[in-house]
Amino acid sequence: MSSLNKEWQCVLTESGPDLKLFKTRFDFMKKPDDEQIHKMIILDSPDSANVIALTPEGKIVFVRQFRFGIKEFTVELPGGIIETFENHEKGVQRELEEETGYTAQNWQYLGKVPSNPVFMNSYIHHWVADNARLTGTINWDEAEEMDLILYSVEETRKLLYKGFFQHSHTSNALILFFQWLDKSSN
Amino acid sequence: MSSLNKEWQCVLTESGPDLKLFKTRFDFMKKPDDEQIHKMIILDSPDSANVIALTPEGKIVFVRQFRFGIKEFTVELPGGIIETFENHEKGVQRELEEETGYTAQNWQYLGKVPSNPVFMNSYIHHWVADNARLTGTINWDEAEEMDLILYSVEETRKLLYKGFFQHSHTSNALILFFQWLDKSSN
Repeated sequence: MSSLNKEWQCVLTESGPDLKLFKTRFDFMKKPDDEQIHKMIILDSPDSANVIALTPEGKIVFVRQFRFGIKEFTVELPGGIIETFENHEKGVQRELEEETGYTAQNWQYLGKVPSNPVFMNSYIHHWVADNARLTGTINWDEAEEMDLILYSVEETRKLLYKGFFQHSHTSNALILFFQWLDKSSN
Repeated sequence: MSSLNKEWQCVLTESGPDLKLFKTRFDFMKKPDDEQIHKMIILDSPDSANVIALTPEGKIVFVRQFRFGIKEFTVELPGGIIETFENHEKGVQRELEEETGYTAQNWQYLGKVPSNPVFMNSYIHHWVADNARLTGTINWDEAEEMDLILYSVEETRKLLYKGFFQHSHTSNALILFFQWLDKSSN
């Protein structure tokens, strides 16, 4: 355990194939202790964002959709990829409306978590907003189709701890949300 | 919201570039409502596994390492990719010893979560084991180098809820662990 705190250096970078959802590149990383070079794949992708949108009745808005990686339906928080022309607050507001038809108020930032720190350079930003109402217009992407599910805050807490949520970006957001909620109510 | 519960069908699959950490393929998915075909990238990768290894002093073993995606250090549970010749229980026992030098007893399965259900077909399996002791041999991969950190169970719980852990595979495992722990102690 020699090189505590020594960062690896990227000494060269090389483009890889474009996979649509992300660009790829290979970073040549120099190991601090023996200075050997290791070629590492990086998926270069924009940040994304999701939101815990609370209705006036104390429910949280979820979307249920078919996920192509695992070929199963999942239940997730609304959200998606931030476009280049917008910041993540605007992006998550747009995604909430496009995916669910809900708009919400009093947006508060909970924090960000890496999408996957091992081979992705992007982050997912987590938001909470209240007074979510069906006042907007659904506008799915061509390859999207989803249903809405509403769970109460306490149902959601139980589902989280049971391991119900199959997308870790949803679980990460909920961890930060419950921490924020429990602090606010103390 | 027409096609509630209708699964998309994969009508064709095509190999994509080999990125070492994963093979890639494109699945051509038929949307249930309009039968249009959408070409989706899938990262085809083996499952992985991680473990909450508890020492006799009630500490959990973590590893701190430099992650190439975000070019920062993270603190994570020990774990890694399951090799083709082993099941995930053997794989996680091997990874614990190779990464940390610890071996442990009474391995119990907590469950699995998709690596990323959107574009990956793999899962991460979560385990807990006790009586973890430094009786094994560290054997890092060529591109690995890490330090050990031990946190008590209650320190770990606080860190989880604070959003300290930067790899969601660690957070997912800890969610299931605390659920299991709180059930066991009731």
